[in-house]
Amino acid sequence: MASEDKITLFTFFRSSASYRVRIALNWKGIDHESIYINLAKGEQHNEEYKSINPSHMVPVLKLADGKSLTQSEAIIEYLDETYPDRPLLPHGPVHRAQVRAIAQFIACDIHPIQNLSVLKHVGGDDMDKRVEWANHWIDRGFQALEKTLAGSAGIYCVGDNITLADIFLVPMVYNAKRFKVDMQKFPIINRINNTLLTLSEFSSASPENQPDCPPEMRQ
Amino acid sequence: MASEDKITLFTFFRSSASYRVRIALNWKGIDHESIYINLAKGEQHNEEYKSINPSHMVPVLKLADGKSLTQSEAIIEYLDETYPDRPLLPHGPVHRAQVRAIAQFIACDIHPIQNLSVLKHVGGDDMDKRVEWANHWIDRGFQALEKTLAGSAGIYCVGDNITLADIFLVPMVYNAKRFKVDMQKFPIINRINNTLLTLSEFSSASPENQPDCPPEMRQ
Repeated sequence: MASEDKITLFTFFRSSASYRVRIALNWKGIDHESIYINLAKGEQHNEEYKSINPSHMVPVLKLADGKSLTQSEAIIEYLDETYPDRPLLPHGPVHRAQVRAIAQFIACDIHPIQNLSVLKHVGGDDMDKRVEWANHWIDRGFQALEKTLAGSAGIYCVGDNITLADIFLVPMVYNAKRFKVDMQKFPIINRINNTLLTLSEFSSASPENQPDCPPEMRQ
Repeated sequence: MASEDKITLFTFFRSSASYRVRIALNWKGIDHESIYINLAKGEQHNEEYKSINPSHMVPVLKLADGKSLTQSEAIIEYLDETYPDRPLLPHGPVHRAQVRAIAQFIACDIHPIQNLSVLKHVGGDDMDKRVEWANHWIDRGFQALEKTLAGSAGIYCVGDNITLADIFLVPMVYNAKRFKVDMQKFPIINRINNTLLTLSEFSSASPENQPDCPPEMRQ
């Protein structure tokens, strides 16, 4: 298991929430270890892991003192508070609310409905049914997100600085492509995502660049 | 419509996310007006409302200067930053992360899957099917939440002070009861919820105490 004096991320290559925290750790340049929890093999249900996170979910960020943090946005806000260089939230409460609202719209209103456990419940082993369900909800969410970004975006989601919102956008677009959402319909989302993926902090956090990504899934 | 010098909440009596913001406005003692958007009648799809929130969702908090904020947690963090009396987040980044994680577990992992638009998609007009689906996901979420609270709770979700986590708990339990979740299985959640509902800031925000609640739905 993890050494006791280092931050440890419990992660799965394809988990959107893990992907967000991977980007934030890269962005802040925080030295850490990774422990890979294979959701496809059900490792999140192991007794040892359940004692770390009773919700059986990734990511978990285990701090050097042994305390464990859950929920990607809570973890990233913790990192932003404790590693203030390269801030992920703007100054000014209205702008902060605007950034958090974009992140939370993705995290609460688009992503959960196509989470693995929901897809299994809806589609069973029928992959076409899973894709149809996920595509429907992401497409619907992106229609609203595109309109929101039309009012807020500069180079990135809110103005010209990288924020929490951008960290949530990239993993969501990754999922959208996986579920065959037509990204041509969403030029602003697509443009910001492509710009972000030119940055090493974002690209090196991507699922296909993780050690636990099976070779056949690398692009 | 709303007057121009007052905060305005766009709300629907039965919306969990609106319920959270109503509690926070009461907790902070913030004078405001309410505009009622009847989700059951589809008023969130009106052109005027869509221009305020492209995601067609409630709540929206319109500030005195005309700016509109969306997403309940982003709105409540805004209120906590701009009205610092009676803080809703503890001092110390680890405790803040713990509080935010409980709120986000409810907002991201339990609530969205039984949101009205998902229920319609899953169950159509079959109310039994809607209840079965919602009950399944809330019960599953509450099993994890009960374990988390066993490690964090005092009088309230995290220790003995009211936090953001408590504001998210009460509307979630309201939904659980609506979808016939057996609350006897979750003694800590049940006890904290009952304690919170003795406080006027929480009870007066409840769906049945809203002017837009139809008389036949009042308890």
